[in-house]
Amino acid sequence: MVNSTSEQIKLPKTSESEKLKKIRHTTSHIMAMAVQKLFPKAQVTIGPWTENGFYYDFDHPEAFTEKDLKAIKKEMIKIINQKLPVIREEVSREEAETRIKAINEPYKLEILDSIHEPISLYYLGDKWWDLCAGPHLENTNEINPKAIELETLAGAYWRGDSNKQQLQRIYGTAWETPEQLAEYKRRKEEALKRDHRKLGKELGLFIFADQVGPGLPLWTPKGTILRSILEDFLKKEQVKRGYLQVVTPHIARVDLFKTSGHWQKYKEDMFPMMAEDEESASLERGFVLKPMNCPFHIQIYKSDLRSYRDLPMRLAEFGTVYRYEQSGELGGLTRVRGFTVDDSHLFVRPDQLDDEFLSVVDLILSVFKSLQLKNFKARLSFRDPESDKYIGSDEAWEKAEGAIRRAVQTLEMEYFEAPGEAAFYGPKLDFIFQDALEREWQLGTVQVDYNLPERFDLEYVDTDSSRQRPIMIHRAPFGSVERLIGILIEEYAGDFPLWLAPVQVRLLAVSNDFLPYTHEVCAKMQAVGIRAEVDLSGERLGKLIRNAEKDKIPVMAIVGANEIEANSLSIRTRASGELGAIPVTEVLDKITKAIASFGNF
Amino acid sequence: MVNSTSEQIKLPKTSESEKLKKIRHTTSHIMAMAVQKLFPKAQVTIGPWTENGFYYDFDHPEAFTEKDLKAIKKEMIKIINQKLPVIREEVSREEAETRIKAINEPYKLEILDSIHEPISLYYLGDKWWDLCAGPHLENTNEINPKAIELETLAGAYWRGDSNKQQLQRIYGTAWETPEQLAEYKRRKEEALKRDHRKLGKELGLFIFADQVGPGLPLWTPKGTILRSILEDFLKKEQVKRGYLQVVTPHIARVDLFKTSGHWQKYKEDMFPMMAEDEESASLERGFVLKPMNCPFHIQIYKSDLRSYRDLPMRLAEFGTVYRYEQSGELGGLTRVRGFTVDDSHLFVRPDQLDDEFLSVVDLILSVFKSLQLKNFKARLSFRDPESDKYIGSDEAWEKAEGAIRRAVQTLEMEYFEAPGEAAFYGPKLDFIFQDALEREWQLGTVQVDYNLPERFDLEYVDTDSSRQRPIMIHRAPFGSVERLIGILIEEYAGDFPLWLAPVQVRLLAVSNDFLPYTHEVCAKMQAVGIRAEVDLSGERLGKLIRNAEKDKIPVMAIVGANEIEANSLSIRTRASGELGAIPVTEVLDKITKAIASFGNF
Repeated sequence: MVNSTSEQIKLPKTSESEKLKKIRHTTSHIMAMAVQKLFPKAQVTIGPWTENGFYYDFDHPEAFTEKDLKAIKKEMIKIINQKLPVIREEVSREEAETRIKAINEPYKLEILDSIHEPISLYYLGDKWWDLCAGPHLENTNEINPKAIELETLAGAYWRGDSNKQQLQRIYGTAWETPEQLAEYKRRKEEALKRDHRKLGKELGLFIFADQVGPGLPLWTPKGTILRSILEDFLKKEQVKRGYLQVVTPHIARVDLFKTSGHWQKYKEDMFPMMAEDEESASLERGFVLKPMNCPFHIQIYKSDLRSYRDLPMRLAEFGTVYRYEQSGELGGLTRVRGFTVDDSHLFVRPDQLDDEFLSVVDLILSVFKSLQLKNFKARLSFRDPESDKYIGSDEAWEKAEGAIRRAVQTLEMEYFEAPGEAAFYGPKLDFIFQDALEREWQLGTVQVDYNLPERFDLEYVDTDSSRQRPIMIHRAPFGSVERLIGILIEEYAGDFPLWLAPVQVRLLAVSNDFLPYTHEVCAKMQAVGIRAEVDLSGERLGKLIRNAEKDKIPVMAIVGANEIEANSLSIRTRASGELGAIPVTEVLDKITKAIASFGNF
Repeated sequence: MVNSTSEQIKLPKTSESEKLKKIRHTTSHIMAMAVQKLFPKAQVTIGPWTENGFYYDFDHPEAFTEKDLKAIKKEMIKIINQKLPVIREEVSREEAETRIKAINEPYKLEILDSIHEPISLYYLGDKWWDLCAGPHLENTNEINPKAIELETLAGAYWRGDSNKQQLQRIYGTAWETPEQLAEYKRRKEEALKRDHRKLGKELGLFIFADQVGPGLPLWTPKGTILRSILEDFLKKEQVKRGYLQVVTPHIARVDLFKTSGHWQKYKEDMFPMMAEDEESASLERGFVLKPMNCPFHIQIYKSDLRSYRDLPMRLAEFGTVYRYEQSGELGGLTRVRGFTVDDSHLFVRPDQLDDEFLSVVDLILSVFKSLQLKNFKARLSFRDPESDKYIGSDEAWEKAEGAIRRAVQTLEMEYFEAPGEAAFYGPKLDFIFQDALEREWQLGTVQVDYNLPERFDLEYVDTDSSRQRPIMIHRAPFGSVERLIGILIEEYAGDFPLWLAPVQVRLLAVSNDFLPYTHEVCAKMQAVGIRAEVDLSGERLGKLIRNAEKDKIPVMAIVGANEIEANSLSIRTRASGELGAIPVTEVLDKITKAIASFGNF
C-alpha cells in the first residue's frame, strides 16, 4: 500500500544516527535563538532531540500562534544562512553562573544546578548560547534549510510538574535532505489516515463509552464480525493441530494468583480486589479480575490424574483478561484495559518440549502468512542475569532459553536476543512486526515455563509409574485480538482483505426497478456464506459507488438492465478497480475462491 | 427416558393436596410419638410438612442411627395399627402451659410463646399430644403403613440458629398408596442418577476449583464443545432473524449502573466494587463486574444517531455476567456466580412492539423444539400493583403487560399470570419447563422495558424528523448457558442427542490389526464434521463397549474382519441398541442427517 519509490528512502531514528543527532541538536538551538530574537521576553528552558526531531520549551507571556511559527522558521533560515560557527566552551560552575546571571535566565540556573561537570556552553556565533552537552555540527550552514520544519505547538510544565510554571513547547524536525523531510511528512500524513482510532470510527468497528471507562472497547456488529472471523480462523487451525478449547471464569480468589505468583509480582497491574468488607480486604480474602489465563488452565489440568499418554495436552481459550493500565497510557486498541488473548497452554513432557515449541512457532508463522504480515523478526526475550526479579532455578532458565534458541535456528528465522526482556516466570520468543510505515509492533509470543508447574505441583504418571513434572508452554499468535485488529486496520489502511472484510460485497442497483434481481443475487451470495448486502438508500449510482468506496467495501456489484439480461454483475473492486460484466456464477466462484485463499477478487 | 407406565402415576405436592397435608401432618406426629416411646429422653421441637413429605427435629443426647430409623418405623406401624383417634382440643394459653409443664418439654413452651390463638393440641389416642395447628386425619388407621417411609437423618439447630442447641432431624415421607410411594422412590433414585453435578463429573464436562471460588465453573474440552454447539446453533438462528452480534466488556464504571438503576436496586447482588483506595470507594468511583448486559448494548445503540429505518435493531451477545449469590446458595450449574446469558436487546418503535415480541417468542419456541423440551408453560410475571419497588409509569407498565398478554394469546400458549414476579424495570414472560421427573425449572425469558430507554435518554429520528423514544425488549431463550446445560444433563440423563454429544461416534477395533481401517473411517467422519474418535486403549471388545456405554457415546462403530471386507461398520447406538453391519457411506449419511434434524441415528 506504500508506493515502491518512497519505500527506498530510509528514515533513521535519532538514536541510530550520529549525524541526525548533531543536526537536530543544532537546529533546536537555532530555533531557540530565533525565538528569542523575535520574542525578547521568551526564556528558554530545555530543548532535547526526539526520535524524529526535537522540541524546545519556552516561558513566554503570550501564546505563540501558527503565524509565529512561520516567522520563527523564516528567522531560522536567516541564522542558517549567516553561517554561524557552533562553538563549544567548557567553563567552571561559577563562570557558568556568572554568565547566566548576566543574561537573567533563571531556568538556566536551575538547569545548571542539576547537571554535572564538565559544564559546556554552545555558542551560535558569538552572542547566543545555551547550556548543552552536545553533540553539535560545526556551522549552522551544515543544515539544509529545505530539510527543516516546525511542526506543532503544545503546552508543557517546567520539570513536567503541573504545579510549576506553564511553558510553551514547539516541536520541529530536521533531516539530512529535503527528500527525507518529504518522506517523513508523507509517512506522518499516511499514519494519520491509517490511524485505527479514526478508521475504527469511520468504518463503525468499535466504540468507547465514558460510562464504561477508558481502555474498554465495545465491539459493534461490524467489529464483532471481524473478531469472530479471526477467532474462528485460529480455532480451525488449532483443531487441526490437536488443541482443545476450554472456557474459564474472568475472576478468581486472590489465592489462585498467590499460588501462581502473579499477586506478588504483578499486583500493581491488576484491577483492585473485590472484597466484601474491610476485614476481608485486609486479609486479602476477595476476588480479582484475571490478568492472565494460565492459572485457570492449570486448574483444568490438575482436575484429573494425567498420564504420559495424555501429553502433550494443549488447552486453548480466547480468554478476556483485565489489566489496570494507567488511564494516561490508554489509546485506541493497542493499549487497553480489557483484551482477549488467543491463549493456549501446552502441558508437555520434557522429551516433547523441542517438537512442541517448533510446532507452535510453525503455527504462528502460518497465521502471519494468512494475515499477509510479512515483515517481522523474532525477539528472544531472555532474563537479565544480573537481576533477581525472576522466579525459578538457573538450570530451568537455561533449558528454556535453549529450547527457544534451537527453534528459531531450526526454522532459520531472523532473530535477536534481548536480555532483560523475559517475563518474571520464564523466557519468551516475541514476534516484532514492522508495518508499511516502518513502525514496530509486538504481535504473538511463545513462552517456556518451568515455574508454574512447580508452583502448582503439576504431575503426570510416567511409563514407569513414577510421578513427573510437565513443562508448560504459553503461547498467543495474535497476542491480543484487540491489538491485532488495531494493527491490521493500520497496516491495511482499513482495506481489509476479502476474507476479513465485515461486508464483502455491496450490491448496487442502477434503479429501484432492478432491486428484485439484486436481492435475488444477494440471497445467492449469502447462501454460500458471502457477507453481501444491498444498498437500499435509493441514491444515484455515482453516490452509491462513492459511499461504497468510503466504506471500503472490497467488492461492488452493479446491477443494470444489461446485467440482468446477461445474468451477470458489473464488478468494481477496491484492489483492482473496474472489472466489467462477469456472469453471476463466475462472480460467486471467484469470491469464494479468493476468500478461501486469503486473497483478493 | 421415563417408562410410560410410571408416567401415569401423579405425585402431587403437599401444597396441592389437602389429603396429603393431613396424611403427612398425622404421620409426622406418629413418628414423634414413636421416637418418644423408644427414646424417652427425646424432646420434640417442630415437625412441619415439606412438599414431598415431612420432618421432625428432636433434642436427644445420643445420635440416632440408621438402625434406630428402622425401629422407629416399626413402632409407627404399631401405632397406626392401634387405630388411635386423632383428637383436636382447643385450650387457653394458661391451660397449654400447665399441660406442657406437666410433661416437662421446654421447647414446647417456647413454641407456645410464638403462636397465636386459637391454641390447639392434637392427641393421638389419649396420652401423646403435641401443639399443632393441623389439619390431621381422624384416625391413625387412615394411613397406609405400606405408603410411609423414613428417609434420612440430618443435623439442625433450634430455631435454625447455629448458636442454639443442636437437634437431630428425621426426614420421612407418606403417600396415599404404596404405588405412589414406589413411584416417589423411583423418581428420587432417578434424580440422583441424573444429578448434573454427578454426571458432569463422570462425563468430564466441567469442574469447580477451590482456588477459583464457589459458583465459578471451569469448562473442560468436552463441556466447551457442548457450550459451543449450543451457542453456534442459537447464533445461526439469530443471524437468520436479523440479529447482530456484539462484544462488550465484563466491567464498567459504577456510573453506568447508576444511570441504569441497577446500582440502586440490585447492588447487594453485585460483586463488591473495585476501587483504587478508600476515597474512591467512598465516592463510588470504581469499576464493577456487570450483572447484566443491557447498559452495554445501550451504549452501542447510543453511539450513533439512529433513524426509524434502523429499527428494529437487535443486538445480541453471549455475555458473561457475574452475580454475588451467597455461597450457601450455590450448587452445580443451576445456581452460579458467573454465567453466560444468551442475551439480546431489541430496540423497537412502538408500532413494531407486538410483531417483534411475537417473533421473539416464536424464536424461543423453535429453540425449545430443537432441544426436545416439550413440557413447559409461560409465566406472565407482572408487577404487584400494591408494591412501590418498581420504576417507570403506570401507563408504560400497562402497555408492556398488554403486549405480553397479546403474544401468548395469539400463539395460543398455556400460560398463567404471576403478579409480583416482574423485574423492577419491567414485566416478563418466563418459560417454566417441567422435566421428566416433574420438577420445574425456569428457562428463557422475554421482557418489555420502557424504563431503560427513558433513563438513558434513547432516541431515534422519526419519519417527520421528530425525536422519538424506542422501546427495549430484553430476551434470552436459554436464560443462562450454564443453567441450560445443567437442566439438559438432567433431562437427558447424560444421554445427549447426537447433535449435542461432545463425542458423537466412537470407533472400536476388534483387534489392533484393524486400526488402520478404523482410523481411515474416523478421518472420513471428521472430514464431514462428525465428532468421531478411535478407542486406542487396546482393551478387548467387551470392555471397549462397556467403556463407551459408561461414557454415554451415542454411536459405537465396531470394526472387525467382516466389516473391513464389506466396507461397513457394525453399529450399536444408545438410543436403539444393536443395528448390525451397515455400509460406511450409509452410516455417514444417516449420522449427518440425524444431526441436521436434531434427531438420533
